Amino acid sequence: MPKIIVEVMPKADLLDPAGKAVNNALHRNGHNEISNVRIGKRIELHFDRAVTDADVAAAQKIGEEFLSNAVIEDVVSVTVEN
Amino acid sequence: MPKIIVEVMPKADLLDPAGKAVNNALHRNGHNEISNVRIGKRIELHFDRAVTDADVAAAQKIGEEFLSNAVIEDVVSVTVEN
Repeated sequence: MPKIIVEVMPKADLLDPAGKAVNNALHRNGHNEISNVRIGKRIELHFDRAVTDADVAAAQKIGEEFLSNAVIEDVVSVTVEN
Repeated sequence: MPKIIVEVMPKADLLDPAGKAVNNALHRNGHNEISNVRIGKRIELHFDRAVTDADVAAAQKIGEEFLSNAVIEDVVSVTVEN
């Protein structure tokens, strides 16, 4: 099924307490090679038909205006998966 | 900064109420071309050094055993971004 994947992350200069907690837990389990963890969202928009360029542009707009909060989050990627 | 991106989605045969709510809201706003929405997680593991193949294998294991709940979620992708 064709889908557009919109990925949203907390802005780089913003604290991410959940990511910090996961990072601490990984360190406690010996994964000291990981310096930081950030947790965001991966939103799949499914289509019953082939995805067009217009759909991708619309998905970018949906991501920025609807799926994310521009004050604290960035849309980091909009990709098509057929 | 090198990072490994682990992506986790609710299993396909599982209800996703948040995704359903977003889908309904998109329909109310005229986006009837979208047939379904699923919401998952995008987790970034940051490294202070280059990422090795062993790190990717470890990240897959961390994703399956630590970042996701195998009963209700799948690790759908583990990718490196340098």
